[in-house]
Amino acid sequence: MNPTAAILLIGDEILSGRTKDSNGNFLAKRLAELGIDLREIRVVPDEHGVIVAALNAMRVAHTHVFTSGGIGPTHDDITADAVAAAFGVEIGVREDARAILATHYDNPAELNEMRLRMARIPEGATLIDNPISKAPGFSLGNVHVMAGVPVIFEAMVAGLLPTLTGGAALHSVSVRIDKPEGEVAAGLAKIAARHAQLSIGSYPFVSASGFGTNIVARGTEQSMLAAAEAEILTLR
Amino acid sequence: MNPTAAILLIGDEILSGRTKDSNGNFLAKRLAELGIDLREIRVVPDEHGVIVAALNAMRVAHTHVFTSGGIGPTHDDITADAVAAAFGVEIGVREDARAILATHYDNPAELNEMRLRMARIPEGATLIDNPISKAPGFSLGNVHVMAGVPVIFEAMVAGLLPTLTGGAALHSVSVRIDKPEGEVAAGLAKIAARHAQLSIGSYPFVSASGFGTNIVARGTEQSMLAAAEAEILTLR
Repeated sequence: MNPTAAILLIGDEILSGRTKDSNGNFLAKRLAELGIDLREIRVVPDEHGVIVAALNAMRVAHTHVFTSGGIGPTHDDITADAVAAAFGVEIGVREDARAILATHYDNPAELNEMRLRMARIPEGATLIDNPISKAPGFSLGNVHVMAGVPVIFEAMVAGLLPTLTGGAALHSVSVRIDKPEGEVAAGLAKIAARHAQLSIGSYPFVSASGFGTNIVARGTEQSMLAAAEAEILTLR
Repeated sequence: MNPTAAILLIGDEILSGRTKDSNGNFLAKRLAELGIDLREIRVVPDEHGVIVAALNAMRVAHTHVFTSGGIGPTHDDITADAVAAAFGVEIGVREDARAILATHYDNPAELNEMRLRMARIPEGATLIDNPISKAPGFSLGNVHVMAGVPVIFEAMVAGLLPTLTGGAALHSVSVRIDKPEGEVAAGLAKIAARHAQLSIGSYPFVSASGFGTNIVARGTEQSMLAAAEAEILTLR
């Protein structure tokens, strides 16, 4: 069995529709490569109680929980406190985090009180490197807390993932069929039943030339995928 | 108090990273215009038990639950059964849904056994119109079940939303400040405290010219937003 994961995206701006999230999709692809099965993505508002409840539901259900957003210097950045509350541990400015943060500023006075909030780390956490703007993320138990700004999130993921134990990488084959789903559904159901160790999905689309279907088979064994692909191609 | 909502996106293809969801963002914007507060977006795999559990958690917590995906003719389309199970009602082919579906095909034989799956509707549900490919969505209680293909999802939303009771529409003002968050955070915290009836968020970005911050204030009263905007502009 591969390790499992959930992603918690924290931010009113996604729920209001103002921001289109890209971090979920970015991390989903990396986890599939690493053989960590992503089982849930959840978006919640910047509210302490909601974040704590989501963290506690997810961290007992999955090998890893990855969060995005809410670790900056402003009043609406409340993720670190919520993580500390979820684990029932203390939180305060940590000297190593403060030292890292200080390297980002030419003048020590720039590390003002609000910016120092970014050095507040829950007790027992390990820092996650932020090569872009220095303010670190952190891992506490199986919860990995990262920034919401995509370039920073992606840089943190790049540093974090090699430290995690993956499983068998998920591979996929994709077959485009220019027929509507309803014409391939019966044949596809039989193929799916014959290849129960693969996950075979059907994704209809509408194009200028009409209705079509993408069939995607996913699994860890390339030889099984090749066998399924050959059968799926007969549906064309 | 405005009505609240949650969106449940059903599909392995989003969790594998293959597909970037756009339905969540599309509906989030429409709900904000309508004065329905979106409180959660959740992505789950094509698994009966997981979908049922998510539906039951969400439908008691929110005024409305909107689902996307899993109502086509193929073996992996299991949403309608999961909704019936969540509500504990029967499901079967409904004659009005079959009649609507039949209008999509020139030849009655094209409405084959797999396609007829799309006329299976849980007991007590109301149909949602699908002007693109006819196969209807449905509303059961406060759960609104729609297709995953974006053009069809968007067309279903367009038909459904006018039938729902909205609240006070959410407006927003956005101010771009070409300074890093840490330089505006202290002033912004004071502004946010003075305008507690608004939701004021800070969204850092990284551009070619360095770190910057977008401040967004959201609320139902335009006059309050204008007052807050004037204060936020002083942070520039």
